[in-house]
Amino acid sequence: MERFSSISMAVVRRLPKYYRYLGELKKNDVKRVSSQELSRITGFTASQIRQDLNCFGGFGQQGYGYNVDDLYQNISNILGLNKIYKTVIVGMGNLGQAIANYSFFEKSGFVPQALFDVNPKLIGLKINDIRVHDVEELEDFVRENNIDIGIICTPKSQCQKVAESLVRGGVRAIWNFAPSDINVSDDIIVENVHLSESLFTISYLLKEKEEVLKSKKF
Amino acid sequence: MERFSSISMAVVRRLPKYYRYLGELKKNDVKRVSSQELSRITGFTASQIRQDLNCFGGFGQQGYGYNVDDLYQNISNILGLNKIYKTVIVGMGNLGQAIANYSFFEKSGFVPQALFDVNPKLIGLKINDIRVHDVEELEDFVRENNIDIGIICTPKSQCQKVAESLVRGGVRAIWNFAPSDINVSDDIIVENVHLSESLFTISYLLKEKEEVLKSKKF
Repeated sequence: MERFSSISMAVVRRLPKYYRYLGELKKNDVKRVSSQELSRITGFTASQIRQDLNCFGGFGQQGYGYNVDDLYQNISNILGLNKIYKTVIVGMGNLGQAIANYSFFEKSGFVPQALFDVNPKLIGLKINDIRVHDVEELEDFVRENNIDIGIICTPKSQCQKVAESLVRGGVRAIWNFAPSDINVSDDIIVENVHLSESLFTISYLLKEKEEVLKSKKF
Repeated sequence: MERFSSISMAVVRRLPKYYRYLGELKKNDVKRVSSQELSRITGFTASQIRQDLNCFGGFGQQGYGYNVDDLYQNISNILGLNKIYKTVIVGMGNLGQAIANYSFFEKSGFVPQALFDVNPKLIGLKINDIRVHDVEELEDFVRENNIDIGIICTPKSQCQKVAESLVRGGVRAIWNFAPSDINVSDDIIVENVHLSESLFTISYLLKEKEEVLKSKKF
Protein backbone atom coordinates (compact mmCIF):
# COMPACT_ATOMS: atom_id res chain seq x y z
CA MET A 1 0.00 0.00 0.00
CA GLU A 2 1.60 3.24 -1.10
CA ARG A 3 1.64 6.26 1.23
CA PHE A 4 2.20 9.87 0.34
CA SER A 5 2.79 11.28 3.78
CA SER A 6 5.51 11.22 6.39
CA ILE A 7 2.88 10.80 9.12
CA SER A 8 3.42 7.30 10.50
CA MET A 9 0.67 4.70 10.63
CA ALA A 10 1.18 4.62 14.42
CA VAL A 11 -0.04 8.22 14.58
CA VAL A 12 -2.80 7.57 12.05
CA ARG A 13 -4.16 4.69 14.16
CA ARG A 14 -4.33 6.82 17.29
CA LEU A 15 -6.54 9.41 15.60
CA PRO A 16 -9.75 7.33 15.64
CA LYS A 17 -9.16 6.71 19.34
CA TYR A 18 -8.95 10.43 20.02
CA TYR A 19 -12.09 10.83 17.94
CA ARG A 20 -13.93 8.25 19.98
CA TYR A 21 -12.93 9.70 23.34
CA LEU A 22 -13.67 13.26 22.24
CA GLY A 23 -17.07 12.07 21.06
CA GLU A 24 -17.75 10.81 24.58
CA LEU A 25 -16.65 14.10 26.12
CA LYS A 26 -18.85 16.00 23.67
CA LYS A 27 -21.79 13.79 24.52
CA ASN A 28 -21.27 14.57 28.19
CA ASP A 29 -21.20 18.29 27.39
CA VAL A 30 -17.57 18.71 28.33
CA LYS A 31 -16.35 21.93 26.66
CA ARG A 32 -12.66 21.88 27.34
CA VAL A 33 -9.97 19.24 27.93
CA SER A 34 -6.30 19.44 28.83
CA SER A 35 -3.70 17.10 27.35
CA GLN A 36 -3.24 15.66 30.86
CA GLU A 37 -6.91 14.83 31.02
CA LEU A 38 -6.80 13.38 27.51
CA SER A 39 -3.78 11.39 28.63
CA ARG A 40 -5.68 10.01 31.59
CA ILE A 41 -8.63 9.02 29.40
CA THR A 42 -6.73 7.61 26.43
CA GLY A 43 -3.72 6.06 28.13
CA PHE A 44 -1.32 7.90 25.84
CA THR A 45 1.16 10.38 27.32
CA ALA A 46 0.23 14.06 27.15
CA SER A 47 3.41 14.59 25.17
CA GLN A 48 2.45 11.92 22.62
CA ILE A 49 -1.00 13.43 22.20
CA ARG A 50 0.37 16.94 21.64
CA GLN A 51 2.94 15.58 19.19
CA ASP A 52 0.29 13.65 17.28
CA LEU A 53 -2.06 16.60 17.01
CA ASN A 54 0.78 18.92 16.02
CA CYS A 55 1.22 16.85 12.85
CA PHE A 56 -2.03 18.36 11.67
CA GLY A 57 -2.10 21.82 13.16
CA GLY A 58 -1.86 23.68 16.43
CA PHE A 59 -5.23 22.88 17.92
CA GLY A 60 -4.56 23.49 21.56
CA GLN A 61 -3.86 26.62 23.51
CA GLN A 62 -1.19 26.89 26.16
CA GLY A 63 -2.89 27.16 29.54
CA TYR A 64 -6.34 26.42 28.09
CA GLY A 65 -5.97 22.98 26.62
CA TYR A 66 -8.27 22.00 23.79
CA ASN A 67 -11.79 23.05 22.95
CA VAL A 68 -13.62 19.72 22.73
CA ASP A 69 -16.07 20.63 19.96
CA ASP A 70 -13.34 22.17 17.79
CA LEU A 71 -10.88 19.32 18.30
CA TYR A 72 -13.58 16.74 17.63
CA GLN A 73 -14.51 18.55 14.42
CA ASN A 74 -10.89 18.91 13.37
CA ILE A 75 -10.11 15.25 13.91
CA SER A 76 -13.34 14.35 12.18
CA ASN A 77 -12.13 16.25 9.11
CA ILE A 78 -8.63 14.80 9.30
CA LEU A 79 -10.19 11.33 9.41
CA GLY A 80 -12.10 12.11 6.23
CA LEU A 81 -15.44 11.78 7.98
CA ASN A 82 -18.19 14.34 7.12
CA LYS A 83 -18.28 12.71 3.69
CA ILE A 84 -20.25 9.88 2.23
CA TYR A 85 -18.43 6.73 1.16
CA LYS A 86 -20.36 4.22 -0.91
CA THR A 87 -19.63 0.67 0.17
CA VAL A 88 -20.55 -2.86 -0.81
CA ILE A 89 -20.32 -5.85 1.50
CA VAL A 90 -19.43 -9.20 -0.01
CA GLY A 91 -20.21 -12.36 1.94
CA MET A 92 -23.48 -12.50 3.83
CA GLY A 93 -22.53 -14.89 6.61
CA ASN A 94 -22.98 -13.73 10.19
CA LEU A 95 -20.11 -11.28 10.00
CA GLY A 96 -21.25 -9.67 6.74
CA GLN A 97 -24.75 -9.38 8.15
CA ALA A 98 -23.37 -7.87 11.36
CA ILE A 99 -21.64 -5.17 9.35
CA ALA A 100 -24.69 -4.60 7.13
CA ASN A 101 -26.80 -4.11 10.25
CA TYR A 102 -24.38 -1.93 12.18
CA SER A 103 -25.99 1.47 11.83
CA PHE A 104 -23.10 3.34 13.43
CA PHE A 105 -21.01 2.84 10.30
CA GLU A 106 -23.78 4.26 8.14
CA LYS A 107 -24.25 7.22 10.48
CA SER A 108 -20.50 7.83 10.17
CA GLY A 109 -20.86 8.13 6.41
CA PHE A 110 -20.07 4.61 5.17
CA VAL A 111 -23.24 3.70 3.34
CA PRO A 112 -23.74 0.18 1.93
CA GLN A 113 -25.23 0.34 -1.57
CA ALA A 114 -25.55 -3.42 -2.04
CA LEU A 115 -24.72 -6.75 -0.50
CA PHE A 116 -23.35 -9.77 -2.36
CA ASP A 117 -23.30 -13.51 -1.86
CA VAL A 118 -23.20 -16.80 -3.78
CA ASN A 119 -26.02 -18.41 -1.83
CA PRO A 120 -29.24 -18.49 -3.92
CA LYS A 121 -31.28 -18.51 -0.70
CA LEU A 122 -29.91 -15.07 0.18
CA ILE A 123 -29.81 -13.52 -3.29
CA GLY A 124 -32.82 -11.26 -3.77
CA LEU A 125 -33.47 -10.86 -0.05
CA LYS A 126 -32.97 -7.61 1.79
CA ILE A 127 -30.85 -7.24 4.89
CA ASN A 128 -31.27 -3.95 6.73
CA ASP A 129 -33.27 -2.85 3.68
CA ILE A 130 -30.30 -3.44 1.35
CA ARG A 131 -30.62 -5.96 -1.46
CA VAL A 132 -28.44 -9.06 -1.71
CA HIS A 133 -27.10 -9.54 -5.23
CA ASP A 134 -25.34 -12.42 -6.93
CA VAL A 135 -21.59 -11.98 -6.58
CA GLU A 136 -21.38 -12.42 -10.38
CA GLU A 137 -22.75 -8.89 -10.62
CA LEU A 138 -20.17 -7.40 -8.26
CA GLU A 139 -17.70 -5.86 -10.69
CA ASP A 140 -20.37 -4.21 -12.85
CA PHE A 141 -22.24 -2.89 -9.84
CA VAL A 142 -19.08 -1.36 -8.39
CA ARG A 143 -18.28 0.31 -11.69
CA GLU A 144 -21.79 1.58 -12.40
CA ASN A 145 -22.30 2.92 -8.89
CA ASN A 146 -18.83 4.34 -8.25
CA ILE A 147 -18.32 2.30 -5.12
CA ASP A 148 -15.52 3.65 -2.93
CA ILE A 149 -14.94 0.82 -0.47
CA GLY A 150 -15.39 -2.93 -0.81
CA ILE A 151 -15.88 -4.87 2.42
CA ILE A 152 -14.86 -8.53 2.18
CA CYS A 153 -16.52 -10.96 4.61
CA THR A 154 -16.10 -14.13 2.57
CA PRO A 155 -14.26 -17.30 3.52
CA LYS A 156 -10.51 -17.37 2.89
CA SER A 157 -10.94 -19.31 -0.34
CA GLN A 158 -12.92 -16.52 -2.03
CA CYS A 159 -11.30 -13.36 -0.79
CA GLN A 160 -8.64 -12.98 -3.51
CA LYS A 161 -11.15 -13.46 -6.32
CA VAL A 162 -13.53 -10.99 -4.71
CA ALA A 163 -10.75 -8.48 -4.14
CA GLU A 164 -9.84 -8.65 -7.82
CA SER A 165 -13.47 -8.06 -8.89
CA LEU A 166 -13.70 -5.09 -6.54
CA VAL A 167 -10.50 -3.59 -7.90
CA ARG A 168 -11.48 -4.14 -11.53
CA GLY A 169 -14.79 -2.43 -10.75
CA GLY A 170 -12.87 0.54 -9.40
CA VAL A 171 -12.96 0.56 -5.58
CA ARG A 172 -10.33 2.75 -3.97
CA ALA A 173 -10.15 0.77 -0.73
CA ILE A 174 -10.85 -2.66 0.67
CA TRP A 175 -11.78 -3.54 4.24
CA ASN A 176 -10.85 -7.18 4.48
CA PHE A 177 -12.23 -9.47 7.21
CA ALA A 178 -11.29 -12.72 5.49
CA PRO A 179 -8.60 -14.62 7.43
CA SER A 180 -6.06 -14.20 4.66
CA ASP A 181 -4.08 -11.41 3.07
CA ILE A 182 -5.21 -10.21 -0.34
CA ASN A 183 -2.86 -9.33 -3.12
CA VAL A 184 -3.82 -6.16 -4.96
CA SER A 185 -1.91 -3.30 -6.54
CA ASP A 186 -0.21 -0.79 -4.25
CA ASP A 187 -2.56 2.01 -5.09
CA ILE A 188 -5.51 0.30 -3.41
CA ILE A 189 -5.87 1.08 0.28
CA VAL A 190 -6.23 -2.20 2.17
CA GLU A 191 -7.18 -2.54 5.81
CA ASN A 192 -7.15 -6.10 7.13
CA VAL A 193 -9.03 -7.12 10.23
CA HIS A 194 -7.50 -10.33 11.55
CA LEU A 195 -9.55 -11.15 14.62
CA SER A 196 -7.34 -14.13 15.44
CA GLU A 197 -4.44 -11.75 16.02
CA SER A 198 -6.47 -9.98 18.66
CA LEU A 199 -7.54 -13.26 20.29
CA PHE A 200 -4.02 -14.71 20.32
CA THR A 201 -2.80 -11.56 22.05
CA ILE A 202 -5.11 -12.57 24.90
CA SER A 203 -3.67 -16.09 25.15
CA TYR A 204 -0.15 -14.62 25.04
CA LEU A 205 -0.92 -12.28 27.93
CA LEU A 206 -2.61 -15.04 29.94
CA LYS A 207 0.46 -17.20 29.50
CA GLU A 208 2.87 -14.38 30.32
CA LYS A 209 0.99 -13.68 33.54
CA GLU A 210 0.84 -17.35 34.52
CA GLU A 211 4.59 -17.75 34.02
CA VAL A 212 5.43 -14.69 36.06
CA LEU A 213 3.15 -15.75 38.89
CA LYS A 214 4.68 -19.25 38.78
CA SER A 215 8.22 -17.89 38.95
CA LYS A 216 7.28 -15.70 41.92
CA LYS A 217 6.55 -18.77 44.00
CA PHE A 218 10.22 -19.72 44.04
CA MET B 1 -4.03 -3.69 32.46
CA GLU B 2 -0.95 -4.72 34.41
CA ARG B 3 2.02 -6.28 32.64
CA PHE B 4 4.83 -8.32 34.11
CA SER B 5 7.22 -8.29 31.22
CA SER B 6 9.52 -5.86 29.51
CA ILE B 7 8.45 -7.19 26.11
CA SER B 8 6.51 -4.37 24.48
CA MET B 9 2.96 -4.77 23.22
CA ALA B 10 4.28 -3.82 19.77
CA VAL B 11 6.34 -7.01 19.76
CA VAL B 12 3.49 -9.04 21.26
CA ARG B 13 1.13 -7.93 18.48
CA ARG B 14 3.53 -9.00 15.77
CA LEU B 15 3.72 -12.57 17.08
CA PRO B 16 0.26 -13.65 15.85
CA LYS B 17 1.19 -12.30 12.40
CA TYR B 18 4.34 -14.43 12.33
CA TYR B 19 2.20 -17.34 13.47
CA ARG B 20 -0.25 -16.81 10.64
CA TYR B 21 2.40 -16.53 7.93
CA LEU B 22 4.36 -19.50 9.27
CA GLY B 23 1.11 -21.48 9.24
CA GLU B 24 0.77 -20.70 5.54
CA LEU B 25 4.36 -21.76 4.84
CA LYS B 26 3.80 -24.96 6.79
CA LYS B 27 0.63 -25.66 4.83
CA ASN B 28 2.61 -25.27 1.61
CA ASP B 29 5.24 -27.72 2.89
CA VAL B 30 7.95 -25.10 3.12
CA LYS B 31 10.62 -26.46 5.50
CA ARG B 32 12.93 -23.54 5.90
CA VAL B 33 12.68 -19.74 5.75
CA SER B 34 15.25 -16.96 5.99
CA SER B 35 14.59 -13.69 7.83
CA GLN B 36 14.78 -11.95 4.44
CA GLU B 37 12.03 -14.18 3.10
CA LEU B 38 9.99 -13.66 6.27
CA SER B 39 10.57 -9.94 5.81
CA ARG B 40 9.27 -10.09 2.25
CA ILE B 41 6.16 -12.00 3.35
CA THR B 42 5.34 -10.06 6.52
CA GLY B 43 6.42 -6.56 5.56
CA PHE B 44 8.58 -6.22 8.68
CA THR B 45 12.33 -5.72 8.32
CA ALA B 46 14.53 -8.80 8.72
CA SER B 47 16.23 -7.02 11.60
CA GLN B 48 12.90 -6.39 13.37
CA ILE B 49 11.91 -10.02 12.97
CA ARG B 50 15.20 -11.30 14.37
CA GLN B 51 14.99 -8.84 17.26
CA ASP B 52 11.41 -9.86 18.04
CA LEU B 53 12.20 -13.56 18.02
CA ASN B 54 15.35 -13.04 20.09
CA CYS B 55 13.11 -11.80 22.93
CA PHE B 56 12.01 -15.40 23.32
CA GLY B 57 15.02 -17.46 22.36
CA GLY B 58 17.51 -18.01 19.59
CA PHE B 59 15.36 -19.84 17.11
CA GLY B 60 17.27 -19.26 13.92
CA GLN B 61 20.60 -20.42 12.72
CA GLN B 62 23.14 -18.23 11.03
CA GLY B 63 23.33 -19.24 7.36
CA TYR B 64 20.31 -21.54 7.64
CA GLY B 65 17.50 -19.26 8.67
CA TYR B 66 14.57 -20.77 10.56
CA ASN B 67 13.07 -24.23 10.47
CA VAL B 68 9.42 -23.51 9.70
CA ASP B 69 7.89 -26.33 11.75
CA ASP B 70 10.02 -25.53 14.80
CA LEU B 71 9.45 -21.80 14.62
CA TYR B 72 5.72 -22.29 14.14
CA GLN B 73 5.63 -24.58 17.16
CA ASN B 74 7.72 -22.22 19.26
CA ILE B 75 5.55 -19.21 18.46
CA SER B 76 2.49 -21.33 19.06
CA ASN B 77 3.78 -22.05 22.57
CA ILE B 78 4.77 -18.45 23.18
CA LEU B 79 1.25 -17.39 22.17
CA GLY B 80 -0.18 -19.78 24.75
CA LEU B 81 -1.89 -21.85 22.07
CA ASN B 82 -1.83 -25.68 22.45
CA LYS B 83 -4.09 -25.19 25.46
CA ILE B 84 -7.82 -25.05 25.91
CA TYR B 85 -9.42 -21.82 27.01
CA LYS B 86 -13.03 -21.94 28.08
CA THR B 87 -14.98 -18.99 26.79
CA VAL B 88 -18.48 -17.56 26.97
CA ILE B 89 -19.96 -15.16 24.44
CA VAL B 90 -22.41 -12.54 25.67
CA GLY B 91 -24.72 -10.86 23.17
CA MET B 92 -26.19 -12.97 20.42
CA GLY B 93 -26.66 -10.35 17.75
CA ASN B 94 -25.04 -10.94 14.38
CA LEU B 95 -21.54 -10.36 15.71
CA GLY B 96 -21.90 -12.70 18.68
CA GLN B 97 -23.36 -15.34 16.40
CA ALA B 98 -20.49 -14.83 13.94
CA ILE B 99 -18.01 -15.53 16.70
CA ALA B 100 -19.99 -18.49 18.03
CA ASN B 101 -19.97 -19.98 14.53
CA TYR B 102 -16.35 -19.29 13.68
CA SER B 103 -14.82 -22.73 14.02
CA PHE B 104 -11.26 -21.51 13.59
CA PHE B 105 -11.29 -20.03 17.07
CA GLU B 106 -12.47 -23.32 18.52
CA LYS B 107 -9.84 -25.27 16.57
CA SER B 108 -7.25 -22.86 18.01
CA GLY B 109 -8.31 -23.84 21.52
CA PHE B 110 -10.85 -21.15 22.45
CA VAL B 111 -13.93 -23.22 23.15
CA PRO B 112 -17.28 -21.54 23.87
CA GLN B 113 -19.04 -23.25 26.79
CA ALA B 114 -22.20 -21.15 26.64
CA LEU B 115 -23.80 -18.18 24.97
CA PHE B 116 -25.81 -15.47 26.71
CA ASP B 117 -28.47 -12.96 25.74
CA VAL B 118 -31.46 -11.05 27.14
CA ASN B 119 -33.77 -11.88 24.26
CA PRO B 120 -36.33 -14.55 25.31
CA LYS B 121 -36.62 -15.63 21.68
CA LEU B 122 -32.97 -16.68 21.69
CA ILE B 123 -32.70 -18.07 25.23
CA GLY B 124 -32.92 -21.84 25.14
CA LEU B 125 -31.94 -22.09 21.48
CA LYS B 126 -28.66 -23.56 20.31
CA ILE B 127 -26.24 -21.77 18.04
CA ASN B 128 -23.47 -23.95 16.60
CA ASP B 129 -24.69 -26.56 19.09
CA ILE B 130 -24.05 -24.26 22.05
CA ARG B 131 -26.95 -23.28 24.29
CA VAL B 132 -28.08 -19.67 24.72
CA HIS B 133 -28.66 -18.84 28.39
CA ASP B 134 -30.27 -15.89 30.11
CA VAL B 135 -27.64 -13.29 30.91
CA GLU B 136 -28.93 -13.38 34.51
CA GLU B 137 -27.14 -16.70 34.84
CA LEU B 138 -23.82 -15.37 33.55
CA GLU B 139 -21.89 -14.83 36.76
CA ASP B 140 -22.84 -18.19 38.28
CA PHE B 141 -22.07 -20.04 35.06
CA VAL B 142 -18.65 -18.43 34.79
CA ARG B 143 -17.85 -19.34 38.37
CA GLU B 144 -19.16 -22.90 38.24
CA ASN B 145 -17.44 -23.68 34.94
CA ASN B 146 -14.14 -21.88 35.51
CA ILE B 147 -14.50 -19.77 32.41
CA ASP B 148 -11.21 -18.20 31.31
CA ILE B 149 -12.30 -15.61 28.75
CA GLY B 150 -15.50 -13.61 28.43
CA ILE B 151 -16.35 -12.30 24.97
CA ILE B 152 -18.58 -9.23 24.98
CA CYS B 153 -20.72 -8.60 21.89
CA THR B 154 -23.44 -6.52 23.50
CA PRO B 155 -24.49 -2.97 22.70
CA LYS B 156 -22.51 -0.19 24.36
CA SER B 157 -25.16 0.31 27.04
CA GLN B 158 -24.69 -3.22 28.45
CA CYS B 159 -21.00 -3.84 28.18
CA GLN B 160 -19.91 -2.43 31.56
CA LYS B 161 -22.55 -4.40 33.45
CA VAL B 162 -21.64 -7.57 31.58
CA ALA B 163 -17.92 -6.99 32.17
CA GLU B 164 -18.57 -6.71 35.89
CA SER B 165 -20.55 -9.96 35.96
CA LEU B 166 -17.78 -11.73 34.06
CA VAL B 167 -15.15 -10.44 36.47
CA ARG B 168 -17.17 -11.33 39.58
CA GLY B 169 -17.60 -14.82 38.13
CA GLY B 170 -13.84 -15.09 37.79
CA VAL B 171 -12.79 -14.65 34.13
CA ARG B 172 -9.13 -13.84 33.64
CA ALA B 173 -9.60 -12.00 30.38
CA ILE B 174 -12.21 -10.14 28.36
CA TRP B 175 -12.42 -9.80 24.58
CA ASN B 176 -14.55 -6.73 24.13
CA PHE B 177 -16.32 -5.95 20.85
CA ALA B 178 -18.71 -3.39 22.30
CA PRO B 179 -18.03 0.12 20.97
CA SER B 180 -17.02 1.38 24.37
CA ASP B 181 -14.20 0.89 26.82
CA ILE B 182 -14.90 -1.19 29.90
CA ASN B 183 -13.65 -0.34 33.33
CA VAL B 184 -12.33 -3.35 35.24
CA SER B 185 -9.50 -3.94 37.67
CA ASP B 186 -5.95 -3.95 36.33
CA ASP B 187 -5.44 -7.65 36.84
CA ILE B 188 -8.00 -8.54 34.17
CA ILE B 189 -6.58 -8.82 30.66
CA VAL B 190 -8.73 -6.73 28.32
CA GLU B 191 -8.51 -6.75 24.55
CA ASN B 192 -10.81 -4.27 22.83
CA VAL B 193 -11.81 -4.62 19.20
CA HIS B 194 -12.98 -1.26 17.94
CA LEU B 195 -13.95 -1.86 14.33
CA SER B 196 -14.68 1.82 13.78
CA GLU B 197 -11.00 2.59 14.38
CA SER B 198 -10.12 0.27 11.54
CA LEU B 199 -12.76 1.78 9.25
CA PHE B 200 -11.78 5.37 10.01
CA THR B 201 -8.19 4.50 9.16
CA ILE B 202 -9.49 3.81 5.65
CA SER B 203 -11.24 7.17 5.35
CA TYR B 204 -8.10 8.88 6.67
CA LEU B 205 -5.95 7.20 4.01
CA LEU B 206 -8.45 7.96 1.25
CA LYS B 207 -8.41 11.61 2.26
CA GLU B 208 -4.62 11.73 2.55
CA LYS B 209 -4.28 10.30 -0.95
CA GLU B 210 -6.86 12.66 -2.40
CA GLU B 211 -5.12 15.68 -0.93
CA VAL B 212 -1.71 14.65 -2.20
CA LEU B 213 -3.06 14.00 -5.68
CA LYS B 214 -4.84 17.38 -5.61
CA SER B 215 -1.69 19.20 -4.58
CA LYS B 216 0.27 17.51 -7.35
CA LYS B 217 -1.89 19.21 -9.96
CA PHE B 218 -0.44 22.62 -9.13
